[in-house]
Amino acid sequence: MSDLYLLKKAVYEANVRLFKSGLAVLTWGNVSAIDREKGLVVIKPSGVDYAELKPENMAVVDLCGNVAEGSLRPSSDTPTHLELYSSFKDIGAVVHTHSPFATAFAQAKRPIIPYGTTHADCFYGEVPLTRELTGEELAEYEKNTGKAIIEAFAGKDPASIPAALVASHGPFAWGKSPAGAVDNAITLEEVAKMAYYTLALSPEAARLGQHILDKHYFRKHGANAYYGQGDHK
Amino acid sequence: MSDLYLLKKAVYEANVRLFKSGLAVLTWGNVSAIDREKGLVVIKPSGVDYAELKPENMAVVDLCGNVAEGSLRPSSDTPTHLELYSSFKDIGAVVHTHSPFATAFAQAKRPIIPYGTTHADCFYGEVPLTRELTGEELAEYEKNTGKAIIEAFAGKDPASIPAALVASHGPFAWGKSPAGAVDNAITLEEVAKMAYYTLALSPEAARLGQHILDKHYFRKHGANAYYGQGDHK
Amino acid sequence: MSDLYLLKKAVYEANVRLFKSGLAVLTWGNVSAIDREKGLVVIKPSGVDYAELKPENMAVVDLCGNVAEGSLRPSSDTPTHLELYSSFKDIGAVVHTHSPFATAFAQAKRPIIPYGTTHADCFYGEVPLTRELTGEELAEYEKNTGKAIIEAFAGKDPASIPAALVASHGPFAWGKSPAGAVDNAITLEEVAKMAYYTLALSPEAARLGQHILDKHYFRKHGANAYYGQGDHK
Amino acid sequence: MSDLYLLKKAVYEANVRLFKSGLAVLTWGNVSAIDREKGLVVIKPSGVDYAELKPENMAVVDLCGNVAEGSLRPSSDTPTHLELYSSFKDIGAVVHTHSPFATAFAQAKRPIIPYGTTHADCFYGEVPLTRELTGEELAEYEKNTGKAIIEAFAGKDPASIPAALVASHGPFAWGKSPAGAVDNAITLEEVAKMAYYTLALSPEAARLGQHILDKHYFRKHGANAYYGQGDHK
Repeated sequence: MSDLYLLKKAVYEANVRLFKSGLAVLTWGNVSAIDREKGLVVIKPSGVDYAELKPENMAVVDLCGNVAEGSLRPSSDTPTHLELYSSFKDIGAVVHTHSPFATAFAQAKRPIIPYGTTHADCFYGEVPLTRELTGEELAEYEKNTGKAIIEAFAGKDPASIPAALVASHGPFAWGKSPAGAVDNAITLEEVAKMAYYTLALSPEAARLGQHILDKHYFRKHGANAYYGQGDHK
Repeated sequence: MSDLYLLKKAVYEANVRLFKSGLAVLTWGNVSAIDREKGLVVIKPSGVDYAELKPENMAVVDLCGNVAEGSLRPSSDTPTHLELYSSFKDIGAVVHTHSPFATAFAQAKRPIIPYGTTHADCFYGEVPLTRELTGEELAEYEKNTGKAIIEAFAGKDPASIPAALVASHGPFAWGKSPAGAVDNAITLEEVAKMAYYTLALSPEAARLGQHILDKHYFRKHGANAYYGQGDHK
Repeated sequence: MSDLYLLKKAVYEANVRLFKSGLAVLTWGNVSAIDREKGLVVIKPSGVDYAELKPENMAVVDLCGNVAEGSLRPSSDTPTHLELYSSFKDIGAVVHTHSPFATAFAQAKRPIIPYGTTHADCFYGEVPLTRELTGEELAEYEKNTGKAIIEAFAGKDPASIPAALVASHGPFAWGKSPAGAVDNAITLEEVAKMAYYTLALSPEAARLGQHILDKHYFRKHGANAYYGQGDHK
Repeated sequence: MSDLYLLKKAVYEANVRLFKSGLAVLTWGNVSAIDREKGLVVIKPSGVDYAELKPENMAVVDLCGNVAEGSLRPSSDTPTHLELYSSFKDIGAVVHTHSPFATAFAQAKRPIIPYGTTHADCFYGEVPLTRELTGEELAEYEKNTGKAIIEAFAGKDPASIPAALVASHGPFAWGKSPAGAVDNAITLEEVAKMAYYTLALSPEAARLGQHILDKHYFRKHGANAYYGQGDHK
């Protein structure tokens, strides 16, 4: 089987998992992945029910967003994904959802502050919130949404904070593989839920101490990681 | 198979989906659809368990609410559905649920303000709340519930805001088809959940900017829509 | 099959439904039913996993709580059930759960005020809260829990408000049959959830108007009911 | 089958149940058990998906944490488990999760106060919160996490309060067997959820009276227990 077919299959499986994990309802949400050698991105087709998805009907576009293969329109969020691939050179997959707790932080225009080790295990610092787009930027809405995420990462490392909240919209997450990006989207929603409950119990809850943040993040990531079996995604 | 049987089947499937999606428990909730040519409305029978529903036992009434076919009583909410069909000429199906977040807004007597793009993707503006019925109006309670919804839509377009909250009661949603109306009821509950969490995180949360509301709504609806595969429900 | 076996089967099925509906976790919760002619009560055995329940291992006690049949100990809450059967002459089944929203109202020592028609459809007025037991009353704790419920119903009709909250403990619900009592316990939890969300959205939420409470309750109950197919549980 | 194989099987089943009960997502959470005669601890391997777990791939370590059997790395939390086994002489199994409500209390740095009998049935008093670790203690982070739990139990009995909240991290629970420890972790999450809802309804909610706490705890535990069938875990 071709590499491209395997990528379609991985993107298909990641999209279905989005639905089964409860992160997406109806046709909301989408996962894409990039083949950087071929210069192609595989992404969920727009507005198709999860029950009707198949590896074969994943959309394939080039890095300008032109359809390279297949007959279904790619997700309308495709230009956002392409911007992220263009600027974040090490990522292999992108996930967008409207998962409810992360979306609530985006709608309340609050970044997600780290309050505990669940956050620190995956996100090395607060999950940033984009600024709102101006009226002029709406002419290229999806592309500028991607640019706003990149702008929010000025001085931050997208590899160590693999998610962002788009103000008034919802979360994007990414990773090396489709499965890894969905893991990060699932973690983001769990972390958002815990932050929400924490703030209800203690509206002035303190940010996690930097020493614990360091400890937990580097326990799972980087050269000295000792979590897992040495097969970090 | 006759058109009427196909409509019964679609209404049956939509009712079952209401239950499976968690929007309805026990015998609560009901879906109807109209055949405008025949002047008939197909609706869930009153108080029957979801497990016992079949396409054949859907109730059929004429536009005055008289039973036209079958032996089971139609939903007690039938007159509300009939009022909506009578005034909202382009709708093909109506859904009523007691889904918990939307019902909480109805009980708190707050319309659902748009705080994000999940709302804007489906509802072009706030989901309105009806006024309370007077004691006198209770003589024709279900009919007047429908009239109160129509009154709440004065100056609003039911096609672009396909749901309402009945004060102290719960949501009604509608659409072109039974499946589309259930999609709208599911979206309404998700949007209500997100609005609830948003208000908890930021009690003074700002209404979504009109330019983003326009952008997202018209991305999915109308002549210039570019979401989906061109088969808008 | 004997009437007693059929009652055991109905109690068994109602207990399993408690678990499947999410109202009970682990071994918490119990359903009983009474055969008033034989003077026997069938109840879940104490501390047995839901997966191990069978119609045959339901416990049978007489009205004094003596084991009349079988080798398993009846639920430790049996004396509470017996008190309810003794005072509420028309009920046929009792359910006890620790369902989380209803239990939270019991722990917060707040009765559940009617805020909407979901409440009014099942409970004709607020779901009362018992007073706390005194230290002396703990000598016959479970029996006195039943007496406290009955005390909370002074001037109220247990047929039209088929549930109570035991302060600091959790809900009891009842009905004519095991299935009907479980329906009421499910409704109570949904109503408690909606009341919780309503109070979060509007801490000074108004009690449902008496005219709507009357309308909805009597739409489903009593001589003039027109909800359902005429087979009210 | 050997005792060790049976222990692996019980630990495997308890880990899977953690996942199925919703207490753990992705690879989070772990269960261990001790064979005190052999001086061996069986524990979930680090970072392995629940779907890939088998009794055979459970990790086995000695009481110093050295791998005694198998090729997979044990959970990175192993030193915490070992500390608990070393100080709490009567426990047979330990569970760690990031279940959301219990974790929120840990992140908000609030112990869980008993507000009702659901709490009292399992925990004889408040579920304690550890102090935060200092920067120096991070050199042996997991071991010192265990020591902090033990410190929080000064003057308390771990047999009658079988859980603790690690500040900014999440809950640990324990029991005589893997199944019993998971029961306690499930109960902890339910109790945390109810406490959260109770505090939202009544921010000044009163601690459960000591006489009721005594009554409920000793109804299920100790020489005079009368709950269950006499087979207390």
